Amino acid sequence: MKNNYMIILRYDGSRYDGWQKQGNTSNTIQARIESVLEKMTGEPVEIAGSGRTDAGVHAYAQVANFHIRENLDPGEIKRYLNEYLPQDIRVMSAEKAAPRFHSRLNAVSKKYVYVIDNAAVADPFRRKYAFHHPGRLDIEVMRAAAAYMTGEHDFRSFCSNKKMKKSTVRTIYGITIERKGEEIHIVVDGDGFLYNMVRIIAGTLIEAGEGTRQPAEISDILEHRDRAFAGPMAPPQGLFLMEVKY
Amino acid sequence: MKNNYMIILRYDGSRYDGWQKQGNTSNTIQARIESVLEKMTGEPVEIAGSGRTDAGVHAYAQVANFHIRENLDPGEIKRYLNEYLPQDIRVMSAEKAAPRFHSRLNAVSKKYVYVIDNAAVADPFRRKYAFHHPGRLDIEVMRAAAAYMTGEHDFRSFCSNKKMKKSTVRTIYGITIERKGEEIHIVVDGDGFLYNMVRIIAGTLIEAGEGTRQPAEISDILEHRDRAFAGPMAPPQGLFLMEVKY
Repeated sequence: MKNNYMIILRYDGSRYDGWQKQGNTSNTIQARIESVLEKMTGEPVEIAGSGRTDAGVHAYAQVANFHIRENLDPGEIKRYLNEYLPQDIRVMSAEKAAPRFHSRLNAVSKKYVYVIDNAAVADPFRRKYAFHHPGRLDIEVMRAAAAYMTGEHDFRSFCSNKKMKKSTVRTIYGITIERKGEEIHIVVDGDGFLYNMVRIIAGTLIEAGEGTRQPAEISDILEHRDRAFAGPMAPPQGLFLMEVKY
Repeated sequence: MKNNYMIILRYDGSRYDGWQKQGNTSNTIQARIESVLEKMTGEPVEIAGSGRTDAGVHAYAQVANFHIRENLDPGEIKRYLNEYLPQDIRVMSAEKAAPRFHSRLNAVSKKYVYVIDNAAVADPFRRKYAFHHPGRLDIEVMRAAAAYMTGEHDFRSFCSNKKMKKSTVRTIYGITIERKGEEIHIVVDGDGFLYNMVRIIAGTLIEAGEGTRQPAEISDILEHRDRAFAGPMAPPQGLFLMEVKY
């Protein structure tokens, strides 16, 4: 019986090709962590994340788990990973998990934040952590549009994968939109998210805030179940996976 | 009579060799801005900053001025610079200045902040904008030590330039030390600063916070007028030039 460990990760996704290991690149968060764990344990390790983050997308608290033969102290795993991982990937905590715990399958909800830098001139300190959109955005209209998205809906129109065969029905528990200084933070809480769903939601809400789309149009977009009807996909650097609940 | 312009700059100093143009490198903030202004005006331009920031040091609001022959609209200068400068250097504002205005000579006070990431695990989003110091820091003791630094003193012990020939007497109007979440912000307000002075102040206050130096020792350090008696120089990434007053 192998030992199962759960780790909470914080990473700056700017220079990575996303979370998931892919055929011809080892420049992913997953590959970096597996490589350090394999060095530590001397065995092949496969790490499961709660979900994939795209290239350039960040995580404030991504959850992942992995099984290894050796019974290691979680504190030792955390120290070893933080010593050998690059500084833009940090292990915030590590603990033993129940044998059948799976970070993706057992997740019951996730929270993302999409950050817009709404200042006239882009803040150089936020250029990798926010989408600079200097135009006027009416957050009351954005909130009205967001209200049409909350609840259980078929979000096929908000999914980049056009060949998605599984159910595209998801429940959004809430979307809050707040100004924080010159930034606008869109927080989306839901039971699960389709490919690029939060970034398409953000892009569509930005159109509403600009006044180029009426809040009530959201119902039509959802009904069409066709990606072509939703707004553009907002760029990756504004998106953070904030929390995964089990 | 040439036209004098004042610009306020915000920059992420991470990848630059500091503010000042130097013999064998053009990788300085000053050189980048001059090169764009020369392209715009077709004449050689020399830009004066309110002070030099070291390699890796940031500016939230650096002030600079320059003279050009042509009478250009300040808004046009701002737009042109922000179009051609790299994204980690931004012009927040540009305006016409009085003919004799000089950003360094006319400055009456400056404010710096030194940011310490005091969390157990370094925040990857703050790794270029804070000094990670995970040990316990007693900010009450730091405040007591800082109180010995405020007022008019000879700060020769807090200056990296051992051959400094000019006066090393400066006045610190105030030092405030606050916790902001897991960070500690040291704000230093004074009439002028010697080479590396704020970073040596920060390094010395950190020693006080660690308990390895008593607040009252600050008086002895100042009296010795010798760099060897002060604490280490804190690393550049925690330092921001916040404000210059005229």
